[in-house]
Amino acid sequence: MKPDPQAVGALVRMALLEDAPWGDLTSQLLLPPDLQVSAQLVAREDGILCGEDIFTAAMSMTGPVTTEFAIHDAERFAKGAVLANVRGTARAVFQAERVALNFVQRLSGIATVTAQFVAETSGTNARIVDTRKTTPGLRLLERYAVRCGGGFNHRFSLSDAVMAKDNHLAALTKNGTKNLTDELRSAFARLPHTAHIEVEVDRLDQIDEVIAAGVDTIMLDNFTIDELRKGVRQVAGRALVEASGRVRLDRVREMASTGVDIISVGELTHRVRSLDLGLDIESD
Amino acid sequence: MKPDPQAVGALVRMALLEDAPWGDLTSQLLLPPDLQVSAQLVAREDGILCGEDIFTAAMSMTGPVTTEFAIHDAERFAKGAVLANVRGTARAVFQAERVALNFVQRLSGIATVTAQFVAETSGTNARIVDTRKTTPGLRLLERYAVRCGGGFNHRFSLSDAVMAKDNHLAALTKNGTKNLTDELRSAFARLPHTAHIEVEVDRLDQIDEVIAAGVDTIMLDNFTIDELRKGVRQVAGRALVEASGRVRLDRVREMASTGVDIISVGELTHRVRSLDLGLDIESD
Amino acid sequence: MKPDPQAVGALVRMALLEDAPWGDLTSQLLLPPDLQVSAQLVAREDGILCGEDIFTAAMSMTGPVTTEFAIHDAERFAKGAVLANVRGTARAVFQAERVALNFVQRLSGIATVTAQFVAETSGTNARIVDTRKTTPGLRLLERYAVRCGGGFNHRFSLSDAVMAKDNHLAALTKNGTKNLTDELRSAFARLPHTAHIEVEVDRLDQIDEVIAAGVDTIMLDNFTIDELRKGVRQVAGRALVEASGRVRLDRVREMASTGVDIISVGELTHRVRSLDLGLDIESD
Amino acid sequence: MKPDPQAVGALVRMALLEDAPWGDLTSQLLLPPDLQVSAQLVAREDGILCGEDIFTAAMSMTGPVTTEFAIHDAERFAKGAVLANVRGTARAVFQAERVALNFVQRLSGIATVTAQFVAETSGTNARIVDTRKTTPGLRLLERYAVRCGGGFNHRFSLSDAVMAKDNHLAALTKNGTKNLTDELRSAFARLPHTAHIEVEVDRLDQIDEVIAAGVDTIMLDNFTIDELRKGVRQVAGRALVEASGRVRLDRVREMASTGVDIISVGELTHRVRSLDLGLDIESD
Amino acid sequence: MKPDPQAVGALVRMALLEDAPWGDLTSQLLLPPDLQVSAQLVAREDGILCGEDIFTAAMSMTGPVTTEFAIHDAERFAKGAVLANVRGTARAVFQAERVALNFVQRLSGIATVTAQFVAETSGTNARIVDTRKTTPGLRLLERYAVRCGGGFNHRFSLSDAVMAKDNHLAALTKNGTKNLTDELRSAFARLPHTAHIEVEVDRLDQIDEVIAAGVDTIMLDNFTIDELRKGVRQVAGRALVEASGRVRLDRVREMASTGVDIISVGELTHRVRSLDLGLDIESD
Amino acid sequence: MKPDPQAVGALVRMALLEDAPWGDLTSQLLLPPDLQVSAQLVAREDGILCGEDIFTAAMSMTGPVTTEFAIHDAERFAKGAVLANVRGTARAVFQAERVALNFVQRLSGIATVTAQFVAETSGTNARIVDTRKTTPGLRLLERYAVRCGGGFNHRFSLSDAVMAKDNHLAALTKNGTKNLTDELRSAFARLPHTAHIEVEVDRLDQIDEVIAAGVDTIMLDNFTIDELRKGVRQVAGRALVEASGRVRLDRVREMASTGVDIISVGELTHRVRSLDLGLDIESD
Repeated sequence: MKPDPQAVGALVRMALLEDAPWGDLTSQLLLPPDLQVSAQLVAREDGILCGEDIFTAAMSMTGPVTTEFAIHDAERFAKGAVLANVRGTARAVFQAERVALNFVQRLSGIATVTAQFVAETSGTNARIVDTRKTTPGLRLLERYAVRCGGGFNHRFSLSDAVMAKDNHLAALTKNGTKNLTDELRSAFARLPHTAHIEVEVDRLDQIDEVIAAGVDTIMLDNFTIDELRKGVRQVAGRALVEASGRVRLDRVREMASTGVDIISVGELTHRVRSLDLGLDIESD
Repeated sequence: MKPDPQAVGALVRMALLEDAPWGDLTSQLLLPPDLQVSAQLVAREDGILCGEDIFTAAMSMTGPVTTEFAIHDAERFAKGAVLANVRGTARAVFQAERVALNFVQRLSGIATVTAQFVAETSGTNARIVDTRKTTPGLRLLERYAVRCGGGFNHRFSLSDAVMAKDNHLAALTKNGTKNLTDELRSAFARLPHTAHIEVEVDRLDQIDEVIAAGVDTIMLDNFTIDELRKGVRQVAGRALVEASGRVRLDRVREMASTGVDIISVGELTHRVRSLDLGLDIESD
Repeated sequence: MKPDPQAVGALVRMALLEDAPWGDLTSQLLLPPDLQVSAQLVAREDGILCGEDIFTAAMSMTGPVTTEFAIHDAERFAKGAVLANVRGTARAVFQAERVALNFVQRLSGIATVTAQFVAETSGTNARIVDTRKTTPGLRLLERYAVRCGGGFNHRFSLSDAVMAKDNHLAALTKNGTKNLTDELRSAFARLPHTAHIEVEVDRLDQIDEVIAAGVDTIMLDNFTIDELRKGVRQVAGRALVEASGRVRLDRVREMASTGVDIISVGELTHRVRSLDLGLDIESD
Repeated sequence: MKPDPQAVGALVRMALLEDAPWGDLTSQLLLPPDLQVSAQLVAREDGILCGEDIFTAAMSMTGPVTTEFAIHDAERFAKGAVLANVRGTARAVFQAERVALNFVQRLSGIATVTAQFVAETSGTNARIVDTRKTTPGLRLLERYAVRCGGGFNHRFSLSDAVMAKDNHLAALTKNGTKNLTDELRSAFARLPHTAHIEVEVDRLDQIDEVIAAGVDTIMLDNFTIDELRKGVRQVAGRALVEASGRVRLDRVREMASTGVDIISVGELTHRVRSLDLGLDIESD
Repeated sequence: MKPDPQAVGALVRMALLEDAPWGDLTSQLLLPPDLQVSAQLVAREDGILCGEDIFTAAMSMTGPVTTEFAIHDAERFAKGAVLANVRGTARAVFQAERVALNFVQRLSGIATVTAQFVAETSGTNARIVDTRKTTPGLRLLERYAVRCGGGFNHRFSLSDAVMAKDNHLAALTKNGTKNLTDELRSAFARLPHTAHIEVEVDRLDQIDEVIAAGVDTIMLDNFTIDELRKGVRQVAGRALVEASGRVRLDRVREMASTGVDIISVGELTHRVRSLDLGLDIESD
Repeated sequence: MKPDPQAVGALVRMALLEDAPWGDLTSQLLLPPDLQVSAQLVAREDGILCGEDIFTAAMSMTGPVTTEFAIHDAERFAKGAVLANVRGTARAVFQAERVALNFVQRLSGIATVTAQFVAETSGTNARIVDTRKTTPGLRLLERYAVRCGGGFNHRFSLSDAVMAKDNHLAALTKNGTKNLTDELRSAFARLPHTAHIEVEVDRLDQIDEVIAAGVDTIMLDNFTIDELRKGVRQVAGRALVEASGRVRLDRVREMASTGVDIISVGELTHRVRSLDLGLDIESD
């Protein structure tokens, strides 16, 4: 499921405008308008591609440039691989270069890191999912990058699923003076039937009263491996179980082995390492 | 020089809309509209703050919330420090929380990394500057974060300074058949007098003919330490000298010691590690 | 859950601009700038209110006008009731009048009709829900009006829940050559865990293979009352049951009596009768 | 006079974004990207078409889809008629379907109702015109629909013609202490010469002093049939006469027979009944 | 009739962003943030003021600045007069200065020139009106400036009045093979009753057949003084008469003396001389 | 260096919408949709062309119209010359005509006046540059027009170069109590290395302390010819010298003869005389 082309187009236009609000001073000064160049998008390290359409869109918006990708989104490539061939006027290619790279490097970085988490958990029941810790303005793209890396998406926004946390529960029970299960059940009855209901718990002893209210997913936040295992047993299939909280690559396999269904990883988008991709340009 | 409040406001509004296109389903379901909360923005690791106005703007846009920062942009803080106190309706604070954190964590991450590069080069002549490898849409903010960390900014965009690279030079001399110095000089004469002129060279032997054309800065791209030292000597004060190319923290001091004026560091914004800051919320 | 004030503000501004792209010719010609008026929003028929914030926003955007509602959204009123008192400059009130009325009359009309459907089904298990047959640009508001009338919302958009129809199923099974249950189950495995899954069936004999794939809601489209009753029995609690298809007020109770959980009613927003509300103005 | 294609395009894009802010989850999950479908836009009741360009635009914006209308705007069709043939990728057609229908059903509904009013008044001197009681954001389209139904448009907005009502007149004469004719005449002298001047009166005895001020149209608001007839006689061709006020289909012919020139009908757009049109889809 | 404050605000914001896309480098570098200044807007030549709200809006958008105008829009001032007093932070005043002046100088220039044309025609029947030859994006403001100078506005746009020219007439009569009066009359019958109808003629002998079709205004384009006089006589009050075509200040009185009702002057906005107004700043 | 096509497109669309918010009433009424016309853009006076792309864009946005320019931007033409040939539907050509002319006439007017200033200073060292006294919203285009006339651009905005004026200097030295050279030098050290530094002085005795701080350009504001000559001598090549202040065509040669490098001329854009260009239309 690729991001909407119109939304992608708007983002690329915004970025090109940010990067050249009144044109590319250098190229318009030094390059003849009709000079053609060929260029190759080359991988300087291994990774997973994400962003072919965005790269292509950026290139096509500054002038007559054609881009052909040899490798496609979600596919793995090795250092040295030629990912795409670009051809067009030098002015257009140079003006788009930085913006096109900024997108594809960041997104491929996210896809590549996601794939590491997915590989670590292979053979387990757990899926790797993203969080709302995305870069402001780029959530649509970053979630797509997570999918390209083999991960899954969590809710898109505050508007499309319920995720109740400790403060919500405290407020609902007026700090414990009311019955949590009853309060939750009556609140959930006011929801659209399409709303997914997830509740976060901090302790094992909260699980049963939450489950009793009818939830789709229960999130075990910052649980130890041992607590996760107990939690999964206690839920016993009555809801999906999500593990959350400072998930790191070196610990994710152990978490997955506890039997949880979902592991949400803020790192996928909260720490972005742009992949090292470069554009090698040759004049004709 | 803080980023323009109107531009900041527009970015925050965009991010809030992205994160809750049709409201915060959970909080509107579970929290009474008049429930007040207090919250503290707490550092879970050491760092440099960047983003107080953006955090405050996000909080103020979802409802009646006041934010007071105890520490200000560009100031250093230690793990455990309370950075800001927030007070307002629970619904407003919860709706703004993730967006406010997403901004301030990323920007403080950039400021903190920048400060490490700046500290590494202290006592040398070299200033640490950013590049155009910024996150699409957030350049204004990320450049500000670099300044908060003690770094300096390079040109904002393709539109406000000349930066000629090897392909430009090759095109200008028709691959060497014309005299570079003459071609550059005649091109530069067509520039606005306010345009800063920078030219990138890959080899020491290019320096003299570029300098002869009248440049403000010469960039030595991917030079070894030894070549940098030679380059500085060869330029001999006739232009500023910028060192560029995969600058890493463990190598930057040696680069700075060569006498270059400017070291541009893509890493500052190309690899973003969100600082670990959290919002601790207490109902009243 | 009120619609987002920023989104409401943008809609009202758009409508005011549409209605007076370069000012209110008549009022600026004939009314002194400082003339104050009082006005009352009066019901000329019974109904349910929806749109107090929108009405107030419209009034406040054309000049210094204060609006106080005596009756609030989702509350019932009788013909003749004074719904709100308005006071401000005549120019501002007159310029906003039509736009403010256009919104509140349409939305109250939707709330009022919804309440009729809800009343018809009282005592049954069925909830009345809206559809995507909303007025382009006003979905946020019209869904709110449905809630004010006691109805519930279906999915907001194509992006936030799965709703598979006959053409989807045909494509998935390559027109019957593949096993529907298997194909659905394998497709659903690729969904975010927060995605609600609904499948529409046209015949009773489709129910079991769809349910077997794991769906949250099954929609019985254009079923007779008798078929609905059989469908509910056949589903037997394994999924929510939604009845759909040209639901009319005079038939909805019978449909609800079949035991379905959800009745989706296109009419709520597809046929909009603006409620008869008027603004009675008195100069001081 | 068709609505401006750019304005139509913007409305359709807005509606598509509202209906699928981050894509069509179901179709992208279940349909192969290259699956082609044929579809027919079919009338399920008699009516007048309005919205062919808008329908076509919506279809073309979600992917490669061609639409050919067999019947054109302002033409009459019978139940069962095929209005248009659509062909394109299933994903594109399904994503656009609801938005395309939402527009064409509403607009055709308006055109069809307008045509009923026009038919009722055939053979009389009166033209049926719309009002400013349009759906916020859709005035351009709804006015076009009125024209498709054989009606005429009133002023577009507050900015393009004068329409003075009782409160304006009261303010102008300081509640009767100044001479109405003089005050009006002196105000009208300040208008652009292109401004149409219309004044609303509530009683027959106001007609002469208003006419004396030089008006283009006089509106008789909420007059009885008998009063209308007297009003027309009294105006005696010195201005156009518009009848207004809760005009219903069963009363419009009698109103028209009084000799008025214009009957403005809020119902045309204030009460929108979407026409029953459906998209019948066949996979290939 | 002042231009819509929201529209003015949007224009000023646009202009401020154009003039300082990422802040005022100089003032943020050199001025302390809390430095207050007083400033006076001073006339360096005689003129008519236009733009007080726009000037004030610009000043208020860059920081805490108050502006009080001593003279108001449409009022005359002499060289040396203090038009307004400004007080606020130096950074805000300096950042807004150029934009605020650019608006008020241009608009006051237009008002002043308009007043000269109006003065030249005083005592005659003719009103001075503007044309569509306005600066792209600023029509709303420039038309207001014309009104401040005592002129009147022509139609705002192509959408709000009919203005038929020779090519329209030729097309309508199929280059003379059809009867102009009949064709016009039948076309005009399809217009909204609020549409003002103006037809341009190039020769005296066209007048009668145009008038016979029922027009509100007849435009005599590029007529000599003598022809204008004959034209007025020939029209004989059956329509308003507008004179048009390269109207210059030294010829306008003679044109007015022919008895025409309207003289449209492209020069008012087609040739803009910014009035010499300056901002004298004093630090405290 | 042509202005960015996307930015041009946005400006043209804005202008077309301003000029026909809901279509061209006259042409849609009177012209058959398929009527083709040919037209010629003809010069009615001598000048320099600027705006071919903008004119072409406007023509292409209202319908199928092709435009071929016989003369290109920055080229000189004589009265009577055919500048462009246009061909397309009459409706499209007529709707675009005024907007297309409004742009090309203004811009060609600016180019033509600039060329006069450039011609006056031919053979001297001085370049003619523009200022920030541009029309709000059109700076990008007007600066391009200055270049078409042979002039050069000054800084684009407040954001891209330092320009310190007397008030800045007074604030920096706390009205003279601190050393100007030291304060400036320390401030300039905080600037990006790409920022051009210009300081304005009012008296000869300020030159040395400003130059000592390290500036790129020194502006001599409102100096007499004699003072300019002395200023140039005093600067002695240590910075570029800009002359500024009410530069008029009849005085510019004398100013240029003083040896200044730059003469900034507010008149180029502050006083806009639209060139007399017309569109001669022939029906086929």
